[in-house]
Formats: sequence, C-alpha cells, structure tokens
Amino acid sequence: MAGPHPAVAAVRTALSRLLDEAEPAGHLTTGAVAVACSGGADSLALAAAATHVARHRRLTVHGLVVDHRLQPGSAEVAARTATQLRALGFDSVRVIEVEVTGPGGIEAAARRARYAALDGARPPGALVLLGHTLDDQAETVLLGLGRGSGPRSVAGMRPLDPPWARPLLGLRRETTTAACAALGLRPWVDPHNADPRFTRVRLRTEVLPLLEEVLRGGVAEALARTAAQLREDCDALDRLATDLTERVRVDEELDAAALGAAPAALRRRVLRRWLGFRGVSGLTDHHLRRIDALMGSWRGQGGVALPGGLVVRRTHGRLQVDRPQHRG
Amino acid sequence: MAGPHPAVAAVRTALSRLLDEAEPAGHLTTGAVAVACSGGADSLALAAAATHVARHRRLTVHGLVVDHRLQPGSAEVAARTATQLRALGFDSVRVIEVEVTGPGGIEAAARRARYAALDGARPPGALVLLGHTLDDQAETVLLGLGRGSGPRSVAGMRPLDPPWARPLLGLRRETTTAACAALGLRPWVDPHNADPRFTRVRLRTEVLPLLEEVLRGGVAEALARTAAQLREDCDALDRLATDLTERVRVDEELDAAALGAAPAALRRRVLRRWLGFRGVSGLTDHHLRRIDALMGSWRGQGGVALPGGLVVRRTHGRLQVDRPQHRG
Repeated sequence: MAGPHPAVAAVRTALSRLLDEAEPAGHLTTGAVAVACSGGADSLALAAAATHVARHRRLTVHGLVVDHRLQPGSAEVAARTATQLRALGFDSVRVIEVEVTGPGGIEAAARRARYAALDGARPPGALVLLGHTLDDQAETVLLGLGRGSGPRSVAGMRPLDPPWARPLLGLRRETTTAACAALGLRPWVDPHNADPRFTRVRLRTEVLPLLEEVLRGGVAEALARTAAQLREDCDALDRLATDLTERVRVDEELDAAALGAAPAALRRRVLRRWLGFRGVSGLTDHHLRRIDALMGSWRGQGGVALPGGLVVRRTHGRLQVDRPQHRG
Repeated sequence: MAGPHPAVAAVRTALSRLLDEAEPAGHLTTGAVAVACSGGADSLALAAAATHVARHRRLTVHGLVVDHRLQPGSAEVAARTATQLRALGFDSVRVIEVEVTGPGGIEAAARRARYAALDGARPPGALVLLGHTLDDQAETVLLGLGRGSGPRSVAGMRPLDPPWARPLLGLRRETTTAACAALGLRPWVDPHNADPRFTRVRLRTEVLPLLEEVLRGGVAEALARTAAQLREDCDALDRLATDLTERVRVDEELDAAALGAAPAALRRRVLRRWLGFRGVSGLTDHHLRRIDALMGSWRGQGGVALPGGLVVRRTHGRLQVDRPQHRG
C-alpha cells in the first residue's frame, strides 16, 4: 500500500510536531482544535491534515471561515470553503462575517478584524490553527526590517502563541499547493494575493524574487532561520529584563546604580516597561539615551522630559518619574 | 563669516562624536589616528574632516591607501589619492600594495587583504578610521539577513571596534559626495561600484531601491536602526552568556541542571562557546537541540554525536564532551 503523497505527509508531520509541543503545555486539554480557513491552498491543506491528525489523537476539529466582505462574491467563497471543510469531516464549521474598519490601511484592518473574530468564535480554550507558511514568515520579517521597529518585529510570527498556532511556518507555499492537488482539493485563489496595491504582495512578487536572484537562493529560509534565532534572543532578554526589574525596583522608583550596571539592552527594556506602565508612549532612542546618562554620566543634571509631559529625574540615587508641578 | 558647508560640517561632527566616545576608552592615547582612504567620496570626505578635527585635538593624522592591484591603473589611483591626502595636510601617507587571494570570492578576499594590510601599517596603538556610511551598513544588514547566519550577522558593522572606527555609519552617501564637492575634492569613482557581478553592487543598485519604493522610503535608515538595536541585544547576550558560563562550569564540564534553567538563547551561546573551545566547528541547530534535550528532556538517553568525532554526554548531572574510545 502506498503512503500519502510527500506533500500531504509533510503537512501532517508539521501539524503533529506542533501538537506534540502544545500538549504538555496544556493547550489541548479541551479536546478541541479550531482551523482558520480562507479556502486558500495553505489553510485548506492544513484543514485536511487537521482532520487526519485529530482523528488519531481523538480531538474534535472545528472550522472557522472568516468572510471579510471586501470583495464581491466573498459570501460565496466562504460558503464554498465551509462546504469543503464539512466534506473533510470537520465536527463543526462556522462562517463569521466581519466588518473591516479602522486605522492603518486595509491589510492591517482586515487582520485585526480577522483575529478578533477567530478569537471570539473558537471553542473556549481551543487553539486556532493558522496556515502561515515559511513564505509568509519571510515576508513578515522583511516588512518588519523595512519598518525599523526593532528586533522583535524582525523576529516574525511564533509557531505557538496561544490561542494561535502556526504549524506550517517551516513549510514552503509550494508544499501546501502540492498537498491540495494530491488530495483533489481545489483551493480558492484570492485576487488580492496578486494585487500590487498591497505592500505584502509586492514583497512576495517583486522584492523576494529579486533578492533570491541576487543572493543566489535560500533567502526565504534564511529569513525564517534568522527570525527563529531572534525570537529566542528577544524572549531571553525579555525574561532577563523582568528579573532585573524585580531587583532594581524600589517601590515606584528604580535604583540608578543597580540598573546602570546592567547591559544597555536590558537597561532599555527595563526603562521602556517602567515608563510604559506609567502611561508614557512614543519613547525614542534619544529619550532612552538621555535617561541612560542619568545613570552612566551622572553629574547632577536635570530631568529628562518625556512625551505626555512627564519627566524622569534622578534623586537620592533613584530614578523617579513625575509630572512637573509648576503649572498648578 | 559663513561656516562650513552643511555636508562638511556633518562629516566633521560625526567624526568628533566618535572621537569623544573613543577618548575616555583610551583609544587616542598615542596621539595618532590613521585614515584608510580609497580615494572614493566616503573616505575622501572623512580624510578632509580628519585633518580639520585632528588639528583641534592635537592629534597627528596618517593616511593609508591600499592598492588592491585588481584593476589596470590601480597604482595611479593610489598615487593620486596619496597626493590628495598630502595636500590636505596629512602628517604621513603610505601606499600599501596587497595581493588579493584566498577563498570566498573576490569581494571577501579583497576585504581580508585590506584589513590585514591596514592593521599592519597603522601607527602602533592608533585607530584606523574607515569611511563606511549608513548606505554601506544597510547593504551589510541585508546581506547578513539573506545569508541567515544569525542575529550577529544582521547586526552589521560597529562604529567603534578597535583598531577600527567607522564615524560615518549615521550619514548617507549623498552627504559625503556633497562634502567633497563643497571642498573642491575630486573623488575617484571605482568602476567596481557599478559592476553587477558583485552581490553588494546589485543590493545597492537594484534591491534597496526596489525595497525603498515598495515600503515607501526610509528603508536604509530602518535597517541601520534595527542593526544598532541588534548589536546591543547581541552584546548583552554575549556578556550574560560569559557570566553564565562561569556559574555552570565545573572544571571541563557543565552543570546540566543549572544550564538547563537558563533561557534557550543563553544556553545555546554557552554550549557554542564550550564546544568551540574544544575544537568543535560546524554545529547546527539540530545538534544544539539534541544537546538541549540532555537537559530539558533527560530520560537517560545516549550521547549526541558532533562534527569531528566528538560526543556530548550527560553523566552524573554534568555535560561532558569526549572522543569515543571504541576504536582503540
């Protein structure tokens, strides 16, 4: 007897590995998993694997199809996808209509609406499996890098970030397409995926292919690999910054000498959290450098003015943040 | 009296800031700095700023011109550059001929030969100022990212990395070009800088302009900003890994429980160093994951085979590395 097609096997294995990781952490205790399915090749291949893998693990599988109502005929696409999931043997299938509104462009607004709807519709306590592939991860990393919003944004998406789970982050898009073909599943091809008005589409269709050519291949894998290492690094620094905060905090204030002795990357994280907790947003590198000087280059200088009218000062060896009193 | 042209002032200010940082660390105690100058706009603008800034700081300035002998007429280019440096008032100027050989392509081989020659020719103890700009940094980051060799390679070049100093990493290439024009200095235009056989040239002339267009500008600055944060993160993790190594090391072995309790990013760094010190190279993520399992998923399993015939095992709660004895 022949085994499953290699692409089908690859999707199943990837899902099994993720569930192996999720189980000891208690994310499968409800006995249910949800699959978010757009009808595209990635999430359709994932849906098919989910019914197979879940049967062996005695989990129920629940389909969630989001209708963004951004394109004519979106309701028909959603209905057709729901039919495919039922045919695959899903225990339940729901189509959820959302309204895409709010700031930041249509891509960001659609993502916000989708995640909110999925979180609201999933069976209580269940993981939601998402079909993001290695290609999506590479695009996300490049986008984060181009925005310059720091290592965390270059670190990309997490495989397990409850309630979200992304078992296919190590697989190429061609594998999900091949898996659908092998299973006789006809995926929906979203016309938005070829629309050059979307930044992500241009990264996928223009920038990444050029980078692959110039750097002689392997770029998507390299981006994903770097992202995985950056996630580990960021996680470690966040955890160490939490420990350090406990050690340097004295009531509402921070011990300047103790904080000043820590490496810059930890100092900055502690300061960002401490100030974020006090409602300060819009901190720049320049602010952090000036606060740093209150520790490393202390010569009795005055306070550092922050966005929102707050000021950080050093008094009796401690950093404190307050609102200047001279107005009233 | 009008001040200097803004571009000239920008280059001088950038150099002054770097020297302000280098001085307390003891890197200017010899009273001499060297400038590596190719004759191109970046290093020529830096050379002009160096004579100006050094005069105010009573430093002597020494010009180092490397002739890579890769193009016909390279000796004439070097001689012309040396003449320009003497005209700028350099205290000494040396032309150094190098031979570009060895593995890794012509770009890598030329860089190795150049750095070795500069290090050998600089006045003892002196910093060597290099003309790398923000544009060079952006290219370096993208190259590191595309290679996937980890966060450190995405972190780019350091402003101060004795004996090397790169004061212009915050300035755009257009600033150095404008500074040269304002000073009446005619830079050499290296035909290699437009040769699409070089990866870096294609990143500069094709990939980065496309990324700037797709992401609507600011990409070079974003790459440089991310690199600076990554350098801080990597420095902190390296320092913390050194501390951790001291805590978990027992003679030649490592305490498995103590190391296992540390965040993955630190554990991996400690393991890489420990094994690197024992002569193991070519460690992959797969090796590190299996060694990790000797700590996190200990169930009495056997050793992990490493490149070079060495094996890591856990014995009496400690990790040890040795060469299996069954051959002799």
